[in-house]
Amino acid sequence: MAVRQHKYLLDESEMPTRWYNVVPDLPTPPPPPLHPGTHQPVGPDDLAGLFPMELIAQEVSTERYIDIPDEVQDVYRLWRPSPLFRAHRLEQALGTPARIYYKYEGVSPAGSHKPNTAVPRVYYNAKAGVKKLTTETGAGQWGTALAFACSLFGLECEVWQVGGSYDAKPYRRTVIETFGGTVHRSPSRLTASGRAFPEGHSGSLGIAISEAVEVAAQSPEIKYALGSVLNHVLLHQTVIGEEALLQLAKAGEDGADLIIGCTGGGSNFGGLAFPFLREKLAGRMSPEIRAVEPASCPSLTRGEYRYDFGDTAGLTPLMKMHTLGHDFVPDPIHAGGLRYHGMAPLISHVYELGLMEAVSVEQTECFSAALQFARTEGIVPAPEPTHALAETIAEALRCKESGQEKVIVTALCGHGLLDLAAYDAYLRGQMVDSGLSDQDLARALAAVPVLG
Amino acid sequence: MAVRQHKYLLDESEMPTRWYNVVPDLPTPPPPPLHPGTHQPVGPDDLAGLFPMELIAQEVSTERYIDIPDEVQDVYRLWRPSPLFRAHRLEQALGTPARIYYKYEGVSPAGSHKPNTAVPRVYYNAKAGVKKLTTETGAGQWGTALAFACSLFGLECEVWQVGGSYDAKPYRRTVIETFGGTVHRSPSRLTASGRAFPEGHSGSLGIAISEAVEVAAQSPEIKYALGSVLNHVLLHQTVIGEEALLQLAKAGEDGADLIIGCTGGGSNFGGLAFPFLREKLAGRMSPEIRAVEPASCPSLTRGEYRYDFGDTAGLTPLMKMHTLGHDFVPDPIHAGGLRYHGMAPLISHVYELGLMEAVSVEQTECFSAALQFARTEGIVPAPEPTHALAETIAEALRCKESGQEKVIVTALCGHGLLDLAAYDAYLRGQMVDSGLSDQDLARALAAVPVLG
Repeated sequence: MAVRQHKYLLDESEMPTRWYNVVPDLPTPPPPPLHPGTHQPVGPDDLAGLFPMELIAQEVSTERYIDIPDEVQDVYRLWRPSPLFRAHRLEQALGTPARIYYKYEGVSPAGSHKPNTAVPRVYYNAKAGVKKLTTETGAGQWGTALAFACSLFGLECEVWQVGGSYDAKPYRRTVIETFGGTVHRSPSRLTASGRAFPEGHSGSLGIAISEAVEVAAQSPEIKYALGSVLNHVLLHQTVIGEEALLQLAKAGEDGADLIIGCTGGGSNFGGLAFPFLREKLAGRMSPEIRAVEPASCPSLTRGEYRYDFGDTAGLTPLMKMHTLGHDFVPDPIHAGGLRYHGMAPLISHVYELGLMEAVSVEQTECFSAALQFARTEGIVPAPEPTHALAETIAEALRCKESGQEKVIVTALCGHGLLDLAAYDAYLRGQMVDSGLSDQDLARALAAVPVLG
Repeated sequence: MAVRQHKYLLDESEMPTRWYNVVPDLPTPPPPPLHPGTHQPVGPDDLAGLFPMELIAQEVSTERYIDIPDEVQDVYRLWRPSPLFRAHRLEQALGTPARIYYKYEGVSPAGSHKPNTAVPRVYYNAKAGVKKLTTETGAGQWGTALAFACSLFGLECEVWQVGGSYDAKPYRRTVIETFGGTVHRSPSRLTASGRAFPEGHSGSLGIAISEAVEVAAQSPEIKYALGSVLNHVLLHQTVIGEEALLQLAKAGEDGADLIIGCTGGGSNFGGLAFPFLREKLAGRMSPEIRAVEPASCPSLTRGEYRYDFGDTAGLTPLMKMHTLGHDFVPDPIHAGGLRYHGMAPLISHVYELGLMEAVSVEQTECFSAALQFARTEGIVPAPEPTHALAETIAEALRCKESGQEKVIVTALCGHGLLDLAAYDAYLRGQMVDSGLSDQDLARALAAVPVLG
């Protein structure tokens, strides 16, 4: 049989040394976040209670590139550059003329893309003298990533995990503790935000964020770290797309026709897509860029583009984003990492500019795709990127119809070895789909403040 | 800070294309297996009910190298070559002058080294027209690997999992099913070997092997695949050591001073160690080679070198090996993959020849090492290789005392993401050590047939 190359690797010396900031390349800048009290644009001082100044500077930066500190690069090299795979065996099973590539972030210590931003976040906080970081986690990938990064720089890490996930996935807590972190079930009794809900409530990302923010505000030695959504988080994730561009060239491709990623808060998607968007805006490549979201939490395809809070209690700044309403609690689908009411302001803005598209998909279709993927490519995907895989497979089958040899690049942002309850439910026929009714959506949006 | 390279990668084109057979390089050949009835050396025909002829030929081969079929190489390339890491961060934490390298097999679809042999086994069986493979699994890594390989070549896969592990690790079953396999709790009601034990019995690898062998013997379209122990299994695993030799040279090392691997049946250890042993026997390198086994299942350090059965029911050929007795049931330690009563005949022979050494270690020391490793290198190790890590750390600390700059290469044969119950027990202080009393050992050895 012909020799097929499955992986395109980069040497550690080829790892990107700068993060890419898409903001200066966009035709118009994204609208600023607003102070929750005054409704005026927030300044650096408004954020100083939550984040160290170097991260605030990155949040509002208009520089195209920001150097990755040596200390961060040294940690990145524990798993980066991550591999780009050509999915020969999946293509063969589908009988498609499309060429499918997937950028795999499951090789990281947390098993997902999250350490790409956890490591610099902890580094900058450590440099600023911070002793402890608080955060929320849903499925647990972000909490794991932050605990890992804190262990390397000697910071304490305190994680509020969404109650439903805490109960359903006890081993996520074990991993976080293995990395030295502490985990609380959210809503907890430790904060006013938590005590506002009855004990045993299944929680939400919005509530867990409120709890972590509340504790961080109590001491200058404690700061908060959000796992997605913010500009600087997406910035750090651009190492994914920068590497993928280099690897695609090694694979002999002169570009990509379609970039597909799942979207929850948007960091994995932005991380892969933004460097390709730069190439598109510069006219060097013309890929379609497509976000895939769960049908039960469709912020881009069915939410409204409005100013809304990032959390349930209204403690965060107001951000202009596609939102389903800050007190919207999505159905408990298995892709816990996609159950967020809003979309990153930067991705929302790019979407409004018409530079990308979005689709939604039901979870049973996702797990059907996941099984086909596992049985051909050998990797058990996390529930989140199964959304991207479902759309990738659907597109590859459309290519089979049309005969188009599209080059598709998809983000496989993590493995599913800590999410096997989801596979178990699917294999036993116990997984159900749950869309979002117009009534529920209207009710949730009614709670969003009317602004700008 | 200075730029440190953490990973030594090989391009897919540098992947070994031959397996290495240590037999012709040994001063004397290993004693042959004996027929369980006649006690005469078994011939190929005696094994034909269990294995296809190409694997039987490998089992008795005296050729130094055997070509890896293209179809197997194509699957290997899904994850191979696997990375060799330099443990800079662990070394720094220990303050050791030793240079520690670990060869990481957790990047495979099963999360362990097992697919290295599962893939060729299924390939040769498929080529011989076999429709179904049966096997045993303890911790679950072997069952996962075989199910994965069967999915690629279109074979059915039926797995008997040791009852205690089946109950304690429900998600292992989910992974095996995700790859399309079927899992039975052993002892099952499906076989006479299983029905000899009461329902709900916690089982052992020996019992599960008997069940799988019994079913395979029922039809020429069904064969059996053992996860370790046999010569051809160790042969397939030598890709590990061959790659490590190339990678060590890329790291600028002109050799290794010490090779450390954990031993259960011996396949991971042999896979890393045998290519280094070849270099040692040829005088090109002079590494010490050290096996590490659990104190509760110490076949090399406390077993006897005798002919014994590979399974509990006495269905397999008799093999000359270090054994604790074929009906010995080790304490239920967390490293399920190391709970086997015997040691690979080839490793037993190498040990008898004085070409390697062995030590044993208690499991709490292993998990203490595992936590230190996870918090510095970012990888959560499987319980089995924590034994090798504990010895690696102990040796690195001895180097700190002596000032020796030893080059240590250790086998990190899998990740522990499906073994988190073990970490949970350790973190909550609920893990206990359990040695092996002289009385229990004597009782188990009394059941071994007196032969040769």
